[in-house]
Amino acid sequence: MNSCISIIMGSHSDYETLKSAEDILIEFTIPYEIQVMSAHRTPELMYEFAKSAREKGIKIIIAGAGGAAHLPGMVSALTTLPVLAVPIQSKALNGMDSLLSIVQMPGGIPTATFAIGNAGATNAALFALQILSLENKDLEQSLALWRKKRAQLALDGNKIVQEKISSSVFKHQL
Amino acid sequence: MNSCISIIMGSHSDYETLKSAEDILIEFTIPYEIQVMSAHRTPELMYEFAKSAREKGIKIIIAGAGGAAHLPGMVSALTTLPVLAVPIQSKALNGMDSLLSIVQMPGGIPTATFAIGNAGATNAALFALQILSLENKDLEQSLALWRKKRAQLALDGNKIVQEKISSSVFKHQL
Amino acid sequence: MNSCISIIMGSHSDYETLKSAEDILIEFTIPYEIQVMSAHRTPELMYEFAKSAREKGIKIIIAGAGGAAHLPGMVSALTTLPVLAVPIQSKALNGMDSLLSIVQMPGGIPTATFAIGNAGATNAALFALQILSLENKDLEQSLALWRKKRAQLALDGNKIVQEKISSSVFKHQL
Amino acid sequence: MNSCISIIMGSHSDYETLKSAEDILIEFTIPYEIQVMSAHRTPELMYEFAKSAREKGIKIIIAGAGGAAHLPGMVSALTTLPVLAVPIQSKALNGMDSLLSIVQMPGGIPTATFAIGNAGATNAALFALQILSLENKDLEQSLALWRKKRAQLALDGNKIVQEKISSSVFKHQL
Amino acid sequence: MNSCISIIMGSHSDYETLKSAEDILIEFTIPYEIQVMSAHRTPELMYEFAKSAREKGIKIIIAGAGGAAHLPGMVSALTTLPVLAVPIQSKALNGMDSLLSIVQMPGGIPTATFAIGNAGATNAALFALQILSLENKDLEQSLALWRKKRAQLALDGNKIVQEKISSSVFKHQL
Amino acid sequence: MNSCISIIMGSHSDYETLKSAEDILIEFTIPYEIQVMSAHRTPELMYEFAKSAREKGIKIIIAGAGGAAHLPGMVSALTTLPVLAVPIQSKALNGMDSLLSIVQMPGGIPTATFAIGNAGATNAALFALQILSLENKDLEQSLALWRKKRAQLALDGNKIVQEKISSSVFKHQL
Amino acid sequence: MNSCISIIMGSHSDYETLKSAEDILIEFTIPYEIQVMSAHRTPELMYEFAKSAREKGIKIIIAGAGGAAHLPGMVSALTTLPVLAVPIQSKALNGMDSLLSIVQMPGGIPTATFAIGNAGATNAALFALQILSLENKDLEQSLALWRKKRAQLALDGNKIVQEKISSSVFKHQL
Amino acid sequence: MNSCISIIMGSHSDYETLKSAEDILIEFTIPYEIQVMSAHRTPELMYEFAKSAREKGIKIIIAGAGGAAHLPGMVSALTTLPVLAVPIQSKALNGMDSLLSIVQMPGGIPTATFAIGNAGATNAALFALQILSLENKDLEQSLALWRKKRAQLALDGNKIVQEKISSSVFKHQL
Repeated sequence: MNSCISIIMGSHSDYETLKSAEDILIEFTIPYEIQVMSAHRTPELMYEFAKSAREKGIKIIIAGAGGAAHLPGMVSALTTLPVLAVPIQSKALNGMDSLLSIVQMPGGIPTATFAIGNAGATNAALFALQILSLENKDLEQSLALWRKKRAQLALDGNKIVQEKISSSVFKHQL
Repeated sequence: MNSCISIIMGSHSDYETLKSAEDILIEFTIPYEIQVMSAHRTPELMYEFAKSAREKGIKIIIAGAGGAAHLPGMVSALTTLPVLAVPIQSKALNGMDSLLSIVQMPGGIPTATFAIGNAGATNAALFALQILSLENKDLEQSLALWRKKRAQLALDGNKIVQEKISSSVFKHQL
Repeated sequence: MNSCISIIMGSHSDYETLKSAEDILIEFTIPYEIQVMSAHRTPELMYEFAKSAREKGIKIIIAGAGGAAHLPGMVSALTTLPVLAVPIQSKALNGMDSLLSIVQMPGGIPTATFAIGNAGATNAALFALQILSLENKDLEQSLALWRKKRAQLALDGNKIVQEKISSSVFKHQL
Repeated sequence: MNSCISIIMGSHSDYETLKSAEDILIEFTIPYEIQVMSAHRTPELMYEFAKSAREKGIKIIIAGAGGAAHLPGMVSALTTLPVLAVPIQSKALNGMDSLLSIVQMPGGIPTATFAIGNAGATNAALFALQILSLENKDLEQSLALWRKKRAQLALDGNKIVQEKISSSVFKHQL
Repeated sequence: MNSCISIIMGSHSDYETLKSAEDILIEFTIPYEIQVMSAHRTPELMYEFAKSAREKGIKIIIAGAGGAAHLPGMVSALTTLPVLAVPIQSKALNGMDSLLSIVQMPGGIPTATFAIGNAGATNAALFALQILSLENKDLEQSLALWRKKRAQLALDGNKIVQEKISSSVFKHQL
Repeated sequence: MNSCISIIMGSHSDYETLKSAEDILIEFTIPYEIQVMSAHRTPELMYEFAKSAREKGIKIIIAGAGGAAHLPGMVSALTTLPVLAVPIQSKALNGMDSLLSIVQMPGGIPTATFAIGNAGATNAALFALQILSLENKDLEQSLALWRKKRAQLALDGNKIVQEKISSSVFKHQL
Repeated sequence: MNSCISIIMGSHSDYETLKSAEDILIEFTIPYEIQVMSAHRTPELMYEFAKSAREKGIKIIIAGAGGAAHLPGMVSALTTLPVLAVPIQSKALNGMDSLLSIVQMPGGIPTATFAIGNAGATNAALFALQILSLENKDLEQSLALWRKKRAQLALDGNKIVQEKISSSVFKHQL
Repeated sequence: MNSCISIIMGSHSDYETLKSAEDILIEFTIPYEIQVMSAHRTPELMYEFAKSAREKGIKIIIAGAGGAAHLPGMVSALTTLPVLAVPIQSKALNGMDSLLSIVQMPGGIPTATFAIGNAGATNAALFALQILSLENKDLEQSLALWRKKRAQLALDGNKIVQEKISSSVFKHQL
């Protein structure tokens, strides 16, 4: 089976963030590919990638970029495939520059934007799965199950906190 | 045919912004519904809507909200359908509050965020169509055509500017 | 006696911040309970909690959340008990996202917001006591006493500074 | 019956904003008083007011201020009554200065902060009622009823939007 | 003579801002051309323009764009001609989004950024002239003269203010 | 008597703001002068002014500037007279650029900064008087009196509000 | 001789920042005193201090505070002595909250604001000296000398950089 | 051959950032000089430098400064040579103050601004080369070659990421 989700990023240092997207795709055993390509340093490669993505069988593109982050918007301009963007946390401005240069796209060329950093990468991948689940009952159920496990983790977190309370202070709540 | 795209908003005053999403869906003759429901004022309605959306045949939800904008994220928490969020331009903070309270979702619950205001609403609708086009060749072609027309509009804009130059100043560029 | 103050938080990692609220409640021997519940990961639990809080004898809810922080506002939407919110300092945006997504609630659903991080948690707890003191003369006096001690700490801080001056530099002010 | 809620503001021009708080108190027939007093121009008056508020029978103070907004925090420093603060939308910085100079209070002196502008004033008043409702079953029921009416308004807003759709465009959703 | 400065903009509505650049070029009788081309709506046109600009005799490119402003950076990525960027004042965020998405370019692909709005457009054009003046003594002198005239305007502004003082108030400064 | 306070500004359009400083000086009959001089357009004039200000009998300089506001800091660098700076409200960024480019001076070259816009201009003038009052008992008393009148204005504002209440709504507070 | 400059701060932890002001006063052998007093925790002490400062022989007050920083503005409200404010760098918002809650004072009550952190403290002290130098020729000359030494330090910094260049790379500039 | 590019900075500590500009100039063997000069501490030196730069054979000035960064704008005001500005990342505000006080120059005095920190310094130097390349075919080709190498580095980064994937997880993408 071909890669149906393509993760792209402007620099190999962005992989640290995008790995959170990859982790989700691995967990759900969704075929994917990862490529470093820069809107600024390899614009032709980006063009070629974006223009041919649909016919190559790619369904969804996850694009991470930081600073004056042009990769997600430019890829969006060159394909009608859904592009899911992850603003990378930048050094000086903490990703506020990445966020604004991605999310404020003009009417006509949509780019779906997620949170700055790893949470955004996780969510871009989950969102890709949610799109795929529209035509895939199994995936829909896997996603529902995954959420249940995460809810359980939240509840486990509750137990951790309860123990911290009971071990470090005398118990008020009897 | 059932409504496959549901546009929701926190207040009827948000319709002024979300109308840009509706315009796109009308232009592409995609069945849709619109509902005012508030995460804060009608939370039960929102819960019920979000929990039953998928089984009612809704495929994609477009949610607009402003200020401490909780509607898109809460609906995302209650369904695995793709939720596309439009931050409404708020009075005091110009929508920066709306944007941050929508886009900064924690890992696990994805909400796709678009630009503040009408451009974001237009793009949320186009993005919905791009998702649907993954399984719909006709729609894929309609989107490609639509983009061509928009490109032509950009070029028409070029003509407008050329005329402004030639009519108001002597021509330098012969 | 039942818990009259309930501290809730979106993730067990928020406990580090909310502990400052707990410390105050312990110091004043006010019965309390702590629970991890997420607006996004365990929305049903949150609903159930908020809807039943008043009848369970809870009087005041202290809610901490970070990023796109929806927990305090959603709980406020589901109960008319006073909800005191603590914006958690987030990674990329330092809590500005948490603050705006909590404080900018629309008219009709009030959430009382305090400072970002531990100071906010301390103050949410003190504010809860101030509310309770409206019907509790003893607590009113305890709060007055507590403030006096804190004033004394400020004065002690003054002594610390005076010593730093006199030990490290020759004394000008004779 | 004595005034139990005191609305104070730094300048009479702030009344435009605080009127939204007054409207709520009138609607619920809660006794109140309104006073212009400035932390900066009439600091002694503010001191005297804050120090004597509790013994005069005031239960809750709603304080609005803009720019370098010191009134809410200073009153909080001088009384253990609950102080509910409304940041006024300022001219140059749209109330971001007002918000930060109110909400970022140091640990020890709590000030409950609400949204910038009229929504914040409405909510401060509602929050005051929620506090009072802890010892007042009738008020608790009035608040619940009020919220129901507001929910109905949201639903009415829904009807307004449905009519806009049906009157201005051909109906897709049959 | 060929156009040596090319002014490009993402939308014809940006002409209102870029006209300030054109005015300077007209005043100095520098040949120029103006074109509307969008990084997002007409990416191929932009590519072709940028790739062929140098061989067509263009020396400097002035590029205006707003929101998620990608035009200046993408053109910079496709040519080694100097690109001078003007952030357009955007609706919701006043051009802060435009500024950050232009100025925060990654190392390797320089884009020279000027102020948001008309002042930035004026300065981009003047900067272009300053570049050209490196090899053009006449232009160097014209620029020096222009600055002198502007200095004189500042001094004239001084006279305007002096008159306002003397006409509206009794003169203190004798 | 010579002018002892010099008001300077970068452009005659800034006079609208600085007039608030002038009004104070007129009210206190303090000799002053006003000059338009630009750090950027007339740097030599600024140099000459700053270097000779002290020997000309100027005691305090009030400097207003907007955007990349360099006038106050540069004058501070060229004289050891106290420089009081007023950030002008700018078009795109509302004076946040003016404020930061004035207030964030490096250690060694102090510039006293006041609020953005007219309030800042009023306060710069009052602050100048406060400096002069250190050696002028009459001025000290005039300032004290002025503050009393302003406090009275605040109290008058209180009366205005009381009347609005009593005329528009039935009186609760009897 | 009495202390003529009083340095106050809201917490003894602020001394780390205000020490930079003290260092300047020591270097110029200007009598000073330092006191920790909190607008929020010891408001009466602050009142008493501010009201009696002038008659005690204090000429200038340097006030440091962070977060919702009310100390400088409240002291300014209670005295007509010049108050020089230093915004302390806060934990979550890096001092932007401190800056705005100090600098945006309403017209009528001036507070002179300096840069966030140590540079601001240094400059507040130097500014105090510049005020005193208006009536003190010796101090005027000392300040001029001090600036010359600082200029020399800048030039020494130049030498440091020249050496770094010549030692680490081959010399271009012969 | 004379130095044709002059790198100036406000403090020797800025060299850490500006070194990235120097590295580019060394790589391209372009003659340069570096000087520490401060708009605030050595204003006369700055004046003299800026006024005589062109006649000394300097063609382009790269100026780095932080905080209330006045050096680039003031040098721009004193010469018609192209000034390329690098905002230094400041301590409290991360360079947002540096950026705004550089980029928001008024119409008439252009300063070309680049990104905050090292990326900006790299790009200022590359931009200088792009200007010089307008009259230097060899340099034009060197720049084109340099970009090709950087593109190759991006592709090498792609290989690094591919290896990380294949070594740490089972391969999906066959």
